[in-house]
Amino acid sequence: MAAAGSPTSAANEGPLGIVCGAGNFPIAVADAVAKTGRPVVLVGFYGYADPAIERFPHEWTHFGAFGRLVALLRKHNVRDVVAVGSVYRPRLKDFRLDWLTLRILPRLAKLYRGGDDHLLSGVIQLVHGLGFRMISVADVTPNITVPEGVLGAHRPNADDEADIRFGHALLRALGPFDVGQAVAVSGRRVLAIEAAEGTAGMMARLAEMRASGKLRLAENAGVLVKAPKPGQDRRIDLPAIGAETVQQAAKAGLRGIAVEAGGTIVPDLAAMVRAADEAGIFIAGIPPETETKR
Amino acid sequence: MAAAGSPTSAANEGPLGIVCGAGNFPIAVADAVAKTGRPVVLVGFYGYADPAIERFPHEWTHFGAFGRLVALLRKHNVRDVVAVGSVYRPRLKDFRLDWLTLRILPRLAKLYRGGDDHLLSGVIQLVHGLGFRMISVADVTPNITVPEGVLGAHRPNADDEADIRFGHALLRALGPFDVGQAVAVSGRRVLAIEAAEGTAGMMARLAEMRASGKLRLAENAGVLVKAPKPGQDRRIDLPAIGAETVQQAAKAGLRGIAVEAGGTIVPDLAAMVRAADEAGIFIAGIPPETETKR
Repeated sequence: MAAAGSPTSAANEGPLGIVCGAGNFPIAVADAVAKTGRPVVLVGFYGYADPAIERFPHEWTHFGAFGRLVALLRKHNVRDVVAVGSVYRPRLKDFRLDWLTLRILPRLAKLYRGGDDHLLSGVIQLVHGLGFRMISVADVTPNITVPEGVLGAHRPNADDEADIRFGHALLRALGPFDVGQAVAVSGRRVLAIEAAEGTAGMMARLAEMRASGKLRLAENAGVLVKAPKPGQDRRIDLPAIGAETVQQAAKAGLRGIAVEAGGTIVPDLAAMVRAADEAGIFIAGIPPETETKR
Repeated sequence: MAAAGSPTSAANEGPLGIVCGAGNFPIAVADAVAKTGRPVVLVGFYGYADPAIERFPHEWTHFGAFGRLVALLRKHNVRDVVAVGSVYRPRLKDFRLDWLTLRILPRLAKLYRGGDDHLLSGVIQLVHGLGFRMISVADVTPNITVPEGVLGAHRPNADDEADIRFGHALLRALGPFDVGQAVAVSGRRVLAIEAAEGTAGMMARLAEMRASGKLRLAENAGVLVKAPKPGQDRRIDLPAIGAETVQQAAKAGLRGIAVEAGGTIVPDLAAMVRAADEAGIFIAGIPPETETKR
């Protein structure tokens, strides 16, 4: 990691450009960066970014209008760029094509055939090649990622730890398929695997299956394991958790949550730990190199 | 496969015992076997088996009352046994413990900590050890499994075939985790992976995500791939499809269904193909050894 990427030196290098997909994480990142004193400029994609980006210096553009995106970043003297938040894979007809986009269209069309990660990291590479420096949210706001260790009042027991290792190994096995940021496991039985529905969707399904009796488990059983996909470009689209994840886990009757330390965004750690302590849920930051033995 | 396991010779070996979990597949198997002239005796688990088993010579028992299960099978001079239909993992308190069960309880408790397959195949082994012969549904009614090749009027194109290979490889990668009988893939993007919710639950989720716009795809896109788990005991719990699977796939906006030939039960092939032709859906029986290249 070049020293220029560290938060302190970066503070001297002009405003940070934050390219904003959907969700509240772009806002959380903007807040955290602004607190360090560095100016920010948010560029939101129409139809994806939260209107709350307008609390900050901001611009709007269409996903796919890359010439305009580049022009907007240059207008604000942005050199360092982070991309945050999800962009559900857009349909080609939602693209706004400008000249730059037309020039790179063959490459885009190729990316478009791969998984979501390929699409997003491809876009990063395109912008990177035009004189910007794409950096990671974890680098620009290190305290925004989950630290290693047990974070609240409740601790995983030996069974939970076995389930965490099992779930983590499963997520890694899914890596080549560009899918799987979360899994729910109980007694080494896989209860649910996340794909396009997202973590919230997966947790809602768990809660529903338990309520209906389709899934019969002890009252508090199971662990949510979340991790970046092995091949994932960590400069974009890191998994994220917060107090609402804790509430979803509690509703789903889980015992706790384990996420990859340093690779999971948490916009408000204190609020999440408070929610977990109240709900009787453990939160653990696990190292990326956890053994795969089962 | 011993000659004794073939349908013709088996017909001379007394009634076939069919141990029945949930769903309509036990009935379909009973119908198919009865057509061959071999008598059947169905033993249903309370709370799981369909009351329609009472159309045949039958008995009811509690899951876990293995001494009674053995006594019932002996009473009907059953030697060959198949087990069909799902048993959602029962809670220990739903077990009815009898003397045999108590004797094997330590082994059961151990099985109970593994995945579903371990539980079910463990039960098979227990019964097998008591003088019964556990055989496969595919052996006793070979025409009840999906044959290889394209089955209806619609054919997968080259993209579909790439998605089928991709999905099949993913299912195999999940094998060590004792999960994953189905996956939905479109353009090598994984849309959904089945765990405890079952195939119908996964398909309903797909339909919902597409209706809500959470999942944006072309109108007909994506393939359902179903296969037995790699480590699965094929004498029990083979995946199954039918006309209702076709309807679920159509609702989910998929282009077709690919299942492992010889390893997937289809109680009424003609009705399924009719439904697929009408819905514009392809059905393909794929060989178990499909290459994993992607």
